[in-house]
Amino acid sequence: MKPFLGYLKEENMSLFTDYYELTMCAAYYDNQNFEVATFDLFIRRLPETRSYFLFAGLEEALGYLQNIRFTEEHLAYLRKQGFKEDFLAYLKNFRFTGEVWAVPEGTIVFPNEPLIRVTAPIIEAQLVETFLLNSINLQTMIASKASRVVQAAKGKAVIEFGLRREPGIDAGVKVARSSYIAGCQGTSNVLAGLIYDIPVFGTMAHSFIMSYPKEIDAFRAFAKTFPQKSTLLIDTYDDIAGAQKAVVVAKELEAKGVRLGGVRLDSGDLAQTSKKVRSILDAQNLHYAKIFASGDLDEYRIAELLAADAPIDAFGVGTKMGTSADRPYLDGIYKLCETQTARGEFSPIMKLSKDKNTLPGRKQVYRLRNGDGSFRKDVIALADEPPVGEPLLLKVMEKGELTYKSPSLKKIRQTAAENLSKLPSQYKVLANAPVYPVELSEKLQQLTETLKRLITQNEINHST
Amino acid sequence: MKPFLGYLKEENMSLFTDYYELTMCAAYYDNQNFEVATFDLFIRRLPETRSYFLFAGLEEALGYLQNIRFTEEHLAYLRKQGFKEDFLAYLKNFRFTGEVWAVPEGTIVFPNEPLIRVTAPIIEAQLVETFLLNSINLQTMIASKASRVVQAAKGKAVIEFGLRREPGIDAGVKVARSSYIAGCQGTSNVLAGLIYDIPVFGTMAHSFIMSYPKEIDAFRAFAKTFPQKSTLLIDTYDDIAGAQKAVVVAKELEAKGVRLGGVRLDSGDLAQTSKKVRSILDAQNLHYAKIFASGDLDEYRIAELLAADAPIDAFGVGTKMGTSADRPYLDGIYKLCETQTARGEFSPIMKLSKDKNTLPGRKQVYRLRNGDGSFRKDVIALADEPPVGEPLLLKVMEKGELTYKSPSLKKIRQTAAENLSKLPSQYKVLANAPVYPVELSEKLQQLTETLKRLITQNEINHST
Repeated sequence: MKPFLGYLKEENMSLFTDYYELTMCAAYYDNQNFEVATFDLFIRRLPETRSYFLFAGLEEALGYLQNIRFTEEHLAYLRKQGFKEDFLAYLKNFRFTGEVWAVPEGTIVFPNEPLIRVTAPIIEAQLVETFLLNSINLQTMIASKASRVVQAAKGKAVIEFGLRREPGIDAGVKVARSSYIAGCQGTSNVLAGLIYDIPVFGTMAHSFIMSYPKEIDAFRAFAKTFPQKSTLLIDTYDDIAGAQKAVVVAKELEAKGVRLGGVRLDSGDLAQTSKKVRSILDAQNLHYAKIFASGDLDEYRIAELLAADAPIDAFGVGTKMGTSADRPYLDGIYKLCETQTARGEFSPIMKLSKDKNTLPGRKQVYRLRNGDGSFRKDVIALADEPPVGEPLLLKVMEKGELTYKSPSLKKIRQTAAENLSKLPSQYKVLANAPVYPVELSEKLQQLTETLKRLITQNEINHST
Repeated sequence: MKPFLGYLKEENMSLFTDYYELTMCAAYYDNQNFEVATFDLFIRRLPETRSYFLFAGLEEALGYLQNIRFTEEHLAYLRKQGFKEDFLAYLKNFRFTGEVWAVPEGTIVFPNEPLIRVTAPIIEAQLVETFLLNSINLQTMIASKASRVVQAAKGKAVIEFGLRREPGIDAGVKVARSSYIAGCQGTSNVLAGLIYDIPVFGTMAHSFIMSYPKEIDAFRAFAKTFPQKSTLLIDTYDDIAGAQKAVVVAKELEAKGVRLGGVRLDSGDLAQTSKKVRSILDAQNLHYAKIFASGDLDEYRIAELLAADAPIDAFGVGTKMGTSADRPYLDGIYKLCETQTARGEFSPIMKLSKDKNTLPGRKQVYRLRNGDGSFRKDVIALADEPPVGEPLLLKVMEKGELTYKSPSLKKIRQTAAENLSKLPSQYKVLANAPVYPVELSEKLQQLTETLKRLITQNEINHST
């Protein structure tokens, strides 16, 4: 096989990084800076209309940290870019040796809460930034978006259908995984089905109908091959005429003792059409035949359709969920929060740019619950403070070795469902949700104020 | 190495498909339908504000078509899904054997123009739909978006900087490639640099500055390692104080006979700050030091900055270009336009859904030019009509074998630049561009009208 995916190989992921990570690391190396540093990966803010994030992507991130290596090909390329031999020799033996804390996939999280905390010699901790962000940003974005779609569907099945417009191959697979975590029933993506054992769904496209001289011939041909639970696409020419033909085929199937699965609508006024189609089916005692809807759906459209009492049994949701179309990126960032000198002294760090402050020190996130188990508020505290609730960050790596076994995808999906059930319903609306309370511990607040003063004094008022 | 990218291997791309492609193919096989079919891949409409597409993604699409195979693992998975043995035996020997016509990468194209035309036994032609769409949709979307950013920068350098928020690993690499085609000068993505020989750029992040006790120590450390053309990030604490420290370091470098590359601004009011920083640099005779700007940029922000005479020399553009944030998907589709029976009779096909009509028959696209070589209009015609201009679709595969050698990436980039220079400037504005004229040939119009009548007669007025 001739490679055609741009050498998209796992062993190349060490170079899946911004060039500046490598120049910074070269400068650290050159200046013999091997101090231990701690970085927090967190999301700066909620996109408008979103009220929570559903965290996903950790399993891949940990796989990356375990496996990052530089090959001879990588080193030759970096040599050509002008990196020095002593630094390249260092990279040749590079392994990630740090400690990592993270929240499990399927956890509900909020802005500014550390989601992954990396403590390692600064070169290692810095180098992994880009991959970790790329991984978490996409998967958390999609899980969060899909969770809204599933909420809007109020228990009706949602199938992820967006493969053709999802941004690339990796995204296609990750969207299927992330949306399954969020509660989708399955995906159209066969590869994701193979890899992750996610249920796969799909029947026919318009082209199948159009390749037959008559629409009903196409229905019959499909029902011959898949007599059990065929879903017929009825809007290629005219949805009402299509529904009537589906009835004919359903009756032919009944004569053979099998049942039509249902019909799919993919265009037009879905609320109105689904009602007409339901009547046509019911008038012929085809109450068992389901109506499946697709075509430009998202959480808002689904909410409208259900509000209009559209008798739709399942939703195929594609592009708008698979690209998180109304907000196709998250503000996930990875920021230095502490350094530790060779003598073992800890020094908390914060960034003080306009509107872009960060929280200093090594931190933990605690979740506090109401009496009924529902989430009340979170507290971000320094890691060495006494716990004030359930800690969300778990130790997942120590000295570069995994200390955590990623749960199965089904288990992660269950965790997500449990967490979503404990998130009060006021935060699960599609717009204008209140802000979930995330507080800073008193010690963290004090540290933040102290550092602000120090930075202003040292850096801003004196130029050298 | 333990796999951590979800088995994202080239040999798995045969399953990178919607499940319904396989059920349709199984039904075709079961009904012994092996007729030759032609499908057009085209984009239905321009996103609002866009006025053209820059086509990209063909090289990967052709690699896929050459290599698609089903492994034993795939067949075992499909068996578990209930596919029948005779169909699985057919898939075991599956090869793509069709004929493909396509427009070269770097071509400017418009809605409804066939971009890839696949003629093959219907099972083969159908099965490849999802991958082709996924590939072309992303790459053409990004090339088109990046082309706008490059236009807005009016000759100033644009570097693609979005890796951490681009949707996944594959997208990260493809965005670098597609935006380079569109005229970006390079990328921060080191892997894309390795794979495609795209120039890579980047210097330091805020964390580098913050890891030193004082900002100027960080500047000095970096300049020690990279004395040639260092770009110092000056906004970690305060951009004006940062600029003054950069001057100190620049003078220290001058004393050693080297020159500072410049400074980078990543936050705040870039227009105002860049002017102040330019004065600070110029007052110290550092006219050679460049100002590099990044932070939430896109074509609109760049146009504003240049309109405000911001003295910025180069732009690092990330998230909004790398996700095509204002429109993160294209309406690329793949539609049956002709079937050919075993007896060799051609039958043009069209879809007549509400607002979703397609153009029947095997087609070619012709481009007509003005006297000065600039593009005047396009004509979509039936493939067997006499040519009326330059044909855009070239034959790229015959009997499943490549008949076309993909140009080097640099050549594709040059093709794009030439094409963009021939697109009249009225179509290259950021908003409210006129619609570029794309006409249908008279024969194609007639065929469309005839088929509309036939379909309405046969399918809509008679239910069986």
